[in-house]
Amino acid sequence: MSNTFGKLFRITTFGESHGLALGVVIDGCPAGLSISLEYIQSCIDRRRPGQSAIVTQRKESDTVEILSGVFEGKSTGTPIALLIRNENQRSNDYDHNITTYRPSHADFTYDQKYGFRDYRGGGRSSARETVARVAAGAIANLLLQHYGIRIVAYVSQVGDLCLNTPYTELDFSQIDSNPVRCPDAAMAADMETLIRQVRKEGDTIGGVVTGVVQALPSGLGEPVFDKLHAQLGKAMLGINAVKGFEYGSGFAGTHWRGSQHNDLFYFDTLQQRIATRTNHSGGVQGGVSNGMDIYFRVAFKPVATIMQPQETVNRQGEATQIIGKGRHDPCVLPRAVPIVEAMAALVVADFILLHQAQQLFRVH
Amino acid sequence: MSNTFGKLFRITTFGESHGLALGVVIDGCPAGLSISLEYIQSCIDRRRPGQSAIVTQRKESDTVEILSGVFEGKSTGTPIALLIRNENQRSNDYDHNITTYRPSHADFTYDQKYGFRDYRGGGRSSARETVARVAAGAIANLLLQHYGIRIVAYVSQVGDLCLNTPYTELDFSQIDSNPVRCPDAAMAADMETLIRQVRKEGDTIGGVVTGVVQALPSGLGEPVFDKLHAQLGKAMLGINAVKGFEYGSGFAGTHWRGSQHNDLFYFDTLQQRIATRTNHSGGVQGGVSNGMDIYFRVAFKPVATIMQPQETVNRQGEATQIIGKGRHDPCVLPRAVPIVEAMAALVVADFILLHQAQQLFRVH
Amino acid sequence: MSNTFGKLFRITTFGESHGLALGVVIDGCPAGLSISLEYIQSCIDRRRPGQSAIVTQRKESDTVEILSGVFEGKSTGTPIALLIRNENQRSNDYDHNITTYRPSHADFTYDQKYGFRDYRGGGRSSARETVARVAAGAIANLLLQHYGIRIVAYVSQVGDLCLNTPYTELDFSQIDSNPVRCPDAAMAADMETLIRQVRKEGDTIGGVVTGVVQALPSGLGEPVFDKLHAQLGKAMLGINAVKGFEYGSGFAGTHWRGSQHNDLFYFDTLQQRIATRTNHSGGVQGGVSNGMDIYFRVAFKPVATIMQPQETVNRQGEATQIIGKGRHDPCVLPRAVPIVEAMAALVVADFILLHQAQQLFRVH
Amino acid sequence: MSNTFGKLFRITTFGESHGLALGVVIDGCPAGLSISLEYIQSCIDRRRPGQSAIVTQRKESDTVEILSGVFEGKSTGTPIALLIRNENQRSNDYDHNITTYRPSHADFTYDQKYGFRDYRGGGRSSARETVARVAAGAIANLLLQHYGIRIVAYVSQVGDLCLNTPYTELDFSQIDSNPVRCPDAAMAADMETLIRQVRKEGDTIGGVVTGVVQALPSGLGEPVFDKLHAQLGKAMLGINAVKGFEYGSGFAGTHWRGSQHNDLFYFDTLQQRIATRTNHSGGVQGGVSNGMDIYFRVAFKPVATIMQPQETVNRQGEATQIIGKGRHDPCVLPRAVPIVEAMAALVVADFILLHQAQQLFRVH
Repeated sequence: MSNTFGKLFRITTFGESHGLALGVVIDGCPAGLSISLEYIQSCIDRRRPGQSAIVTQRKESDTVEILSGVFEGKSTGTPIALLIRNENQRSNDYDHNITTYRPSHADFTYDQKYGFRDYRGGGRSSARETVARVAAGAIANLLLQHYGIRIVAYVSQVGDLCLNTPYTELDFSQIDSNPVRCPDAAMAADMETLIRQVRKEGDTIGGVVTGVVQALPSGLGEPVFDKLHAQLGKAMLGINAVKGFEYGSGFAGTHWRGSQHNDLFYFDTLQQRIATRTNHSGGVQGGVSNGMDIYFRVAFKPVATIMQPQETVNRQGEATQIIGKGRHDPCVLPRAVPIVEAMAALVVADFILLHQAQQLFRVH
Repeated sequence: MSNTFGKLFRITTFGESHGLALGVVIDGCPAGLSISLEYIQSCIDRRRPGQSAIVTQRKESDTVEILSGVFEGKSTGTPIALLIRNENQRSNDYDHNITTYRPSHADFTYDQKYGFRDYRGGGRSSARETVARVAAGAIANLLLQHYGIRIVAYVSQVGDLCLNTPYTELDFSQIDSNPVRCPDAAMAADMETLIRQVRKEGDTIGGVVTGVVQALPSGLGEPVFDKLHAQLGKAMLGINAVKGFEYGSGFAGTHWRGSQHNDLFYFDTLQQRIATRTNHSGGVQGGVSNGMDIYFRVAFKPVATIMQPQETVNRQGEATQIIGKGRHDPCVLPRAVPIVEAMAALVVADFILLHQAQQLFRVH
Repeated sequence: MSNTFGKLFRITTFGESHGLALGVVIDGCPAGLSISLEYIQSCIDRRRPGQSAIVTQRKESDTVEILSGVFEGKSTGTPIALLIRNENQRSNDYDHNITTYRPSHADFTYDQKYGFRDYRGGGRSSARETVARVAAGAIANLLLQHYGIRIVAYVSQVGDLCLNTPYTELDFSQIDSNPVRCPDAAMAADMETLIRQVRKEGDTIGGVVTGVVQALPSGLGEPVFDKLHAQLGKAMLGINAVKGFEYGSGFAGTHWRGSQHNDLFYFDTLQQRIATRTNHSGGVQGGVSNGMDIYFRVAFKPVATIMQPQETVNRQGEATQIIGKGRHDPCVLPRAVPIVEAMAALVVADFILLHQAQQLFRVH
Repeated sequence: MSNTFGKLFRITTFGESHGLALGVVIDGCPAGLSISLEYIQSCIDRRRPGQSAIVTQRKESDTVEILSGVFEGKSTGTPIALLIRNENQRSNDYDHNITTYRPSHADFTYDQKYGFRDYRGGGRSSARETVARVAAGAIANLLLQHYGIRIVAYVSQVGDLCLNTPYTELDFSQIDSNPVRCPDAAMAADMETLIRQVRKEGDTIGGVVTGVVQALPSGLGEPVFDKLHAQLGKAMLGINAVKGFEYGSGFAGTHWRGSQHNDLFYFDTLQQRIATRTNHSGGVQGGVSNGMDIYFRVAFKPVATIMQPQETVNRQGEATQIIGKGRHDPCVLPRAVPIVEAMAALVVADFILLHQAQQLFRVH
């Protein structure tokens, strides 16, 4: 259950890591939107394994196929189904975890929930499922582009290496210029060195992705339970390995006084609109966008699969040892960037449609 | 839109700060559950204004009435409607914000979204709406008690005052022994002093509430989008003034290596079940509960209403000044504790029903 | 569960026949709609008991109260809660069915479903619940009026008395000119005589309500599962005592050839639009409105409560007898008219918002 | 939008008549259910074109592929995706309706709704979409078999040929013994003759499918809006060409008195349970199953595509003529039988899971 996300711009993903295919059905995309297969593929390529030396060396081409919902290059208003066939399945790499529970993976909890599980590569619990989200996010992004909205994410922390420069001072065009996807070249180099070293040790490391939504109109977001940042938070927390979410001032803001934290309103004569002098609110007040940038941070734990022996138990609860096999990411952050962008795009697309729904105009 | 929360244990809240009443309809509560009006009232009393010297001095009795769904002391399986009439409405306190936008409030964004707004006391954007959530959370908690599950929250930070003691070493019975709702007496006293001082300055201050779910069975939570912690995060981020959510190791865990972070499995001979030696996972792996405690932290910004003059604009975008009137909380944390508990209870109750739904047994 | 209807224009009803109150929360009504309490009350009055000699003589004033969501006469975009307190509760009239199952009522099935039930007046299974739907339908109708759409229903059959005149030849202004709500005066008189006679015999009788939606724009309705007529059918079948639904040619059309049934397109020069020469489709093709009138028929069984002794069993399955007490309708049709209109309005309102959501325009 | 059906046992279909594939994602099927590919294929074969002389002669093999959600022959609790590739696409057959609106088809309404449409074979509005429902219905039926519930449908009317024998006196094993799927051999022969004659005339004809649900436990169905028969009705009305739905006494019952219609309770000593002497209620009282058989009738209009010239207009509203091309069903009824069964199975499966959700037992 719960493989569907969104209310109006609504996606349903399916597929297992080592099954036949991953896929997604997008229901609710307005008709008449130009859909570029090349664009969808380019988004998928950004999360593809094997794209650089610091990510997993699995070789999946991850070729996407549009099964339905697009006719003569445009969305028809009917469900858009996207399919990515699995290719490079070395399922034998996972024989060791048929009966043994990998620490901090979902092996044990899936067995508890479902009674058994597809153990090959983590099955449905594998982060491979996110390829379907990225495919759907590409369609959402095409919709956002129609509305002039822009979503960007980048790696702002790996282990103890934190990029403290405010996002407003960064050159986003540099994000993809390095394999870490950090827009600061010097920091990116340090991060890459760290990731290589961690991998050499057979270990893994966590970090933070920062996301930004720009040129979002005010008035989006649904009080009270589906506040813009609440839905965004849920979207991010639903990504594998995520342990925390904050937006605007976040946890840091809890130390402040109201007199420091409040964002004072003024009239921005350049843009001819009401704006705020600071943006500790992170673009959202009362759950609704105020026209300023939305920015947020997403915490990723270190990848659970390490190339070191670990104590664990088998299904019978008997003590045993396990050591990671297969080809894994020493740090999930670089490949998480397009996933964060995709999920953010899906959230915003949904809120746009919800907003339109509630207007009091004539259909005629 | 979006005043409904939950899939099967489902609540819909309504009401404005200075309207006639606040209320909630709970749809999906199983029949036959003993419902105590006294218990619901006691939960509401914990978030009531005027309960101590460090919270707002508004005097609302917040008396709850059960309108439907309970017969002869038990839930009937039909919707339970709870109503709390508003009493102490000094709407004149809000004349100043008819046309003026209070900084970091929802005045501006609601106007942008809806074209106009009920300006009295913030209307629907007021945290007063959470009284309905607490009422519904009480019913959810009665359900959880039936299943032997316990939910506790407490204030773990106010401004720079952080209680770093792990929750496992705290005496939860002390939480309500002081007005701050911090289980450490010395820390509570310091926090109280700080809040009093902040109020004296006409200012406000933020902080953190920590929540814990105990005795939760394994197997709860719905992959992939409705992971237990994702839904919990959404629930918390939907509370007024919340800026961040983390569970288990949270943002701190992003600095660690996988070899430090992984929770090793062992067989707990005392409880006769598989357990983990550490609990950095925060009781959730792959979005599904593993039987260990769930613990999480919720970041609250300082209250936006301060008793100091602030620059702002009116609806026409003209520069003006505003100064807080009315009776407000200098620190929202103590009253946020029962709200965090209520939202957590609603999330867990929903996952229990979802879990039951998916079993393969006979209805007969 | 399932006390919510609609996706975007969304209502949740609550309350029992002999509980404290009936009510409804409407979530998703666009902001800025003029809301007239008088209009809502007038809709409720049309289904009120005691309004004529041929309906139940219970005396409920059914006074509606707006608890939230309306400010200065307009909808605010937040949930609109409407409350109708119960007054004339002669619960003793229902002592006889505490342990005895009334034939063709929900007493037995509710006990089977929930383990016990609020037996007073049928509790939640009573048609009294529909007062909340009529209240919500009034709001929906205000929205439809804004869009220029008109919904009308009338009694077209009572027992064997069938009004076969096509709706297009009837004068809808005559519907409320008689207590039966049949627009043909002669037929109405005959129906009234029949109902009086049936009541004298301590019996009840069924019939049909015909509904019409006029001036609906084309393009409304959501393929594939939420076809306009499918959702309309569900709405009608959800009304107490309804046994069937048909639209357009309905069951009669199953006897025809395609060459007779097909509606040929032509260009209507008067209205400057494409129209059909006949309307066997009932205004819907492929689940989507085509701009012609929607018309449909709703079958109501005879009321289950009769003033004659009937064989039945008690909770223990022991044979016993029961005879109706209380004040009941001999024929539900006249009071069903506003309920049918309300449910139709709710369906159409929802489809309007869904349609708006899917447009590809700019939010700005 | 609205290509999803069901709340807990939840399907999402996709695909166009002449696109690459049709498919469905089933989310919410409990884990551990034995899934037989052969069984799914056998269900699909029953609605396949070309299976007999009286249905369309298109030759699609309709081979189904399980993409996900099944491991070692059992459902895993994760989404089950089923894919049916299109093969025999003679899209040129549809060149004539690129710009011309076929009478009583969805060409015009889809253009009105979406601005343009995939005109090849009706695109998404084609009944070909129902192959995905039948595939999903097969999984639902496997679940129902686990619970001992049986669903059967048959053709009970073609044009004026009505099988008036009550379903209780029919031999369901004879349904598939003839191409019409009518369990009465003599009537089936007459119906077949009629259909052949209608086809010879280049015409089409309507009819009725009767459905029966047997061995359903009492207590299923969700008051108030999702009554068992309301959801069943919506499911049937969502099938292409359906114009009406009735259950139990249906429209006929509107002519009766309450004293005739009421189903008297008695204790069935054989089955050791409370039962009713008659079953005019059609197995449902107050929206909840009472343990008796559910039976219902579904009205299908004559197929819109006829092999005769018809007046119509093109997109510009100019008068023109059209004549059916391609290979079409002269009567949709025989192939509708498995579709009706599939939709009924989906409805019942969902209500079983909903019922389980609401029990008050322990998860442990």
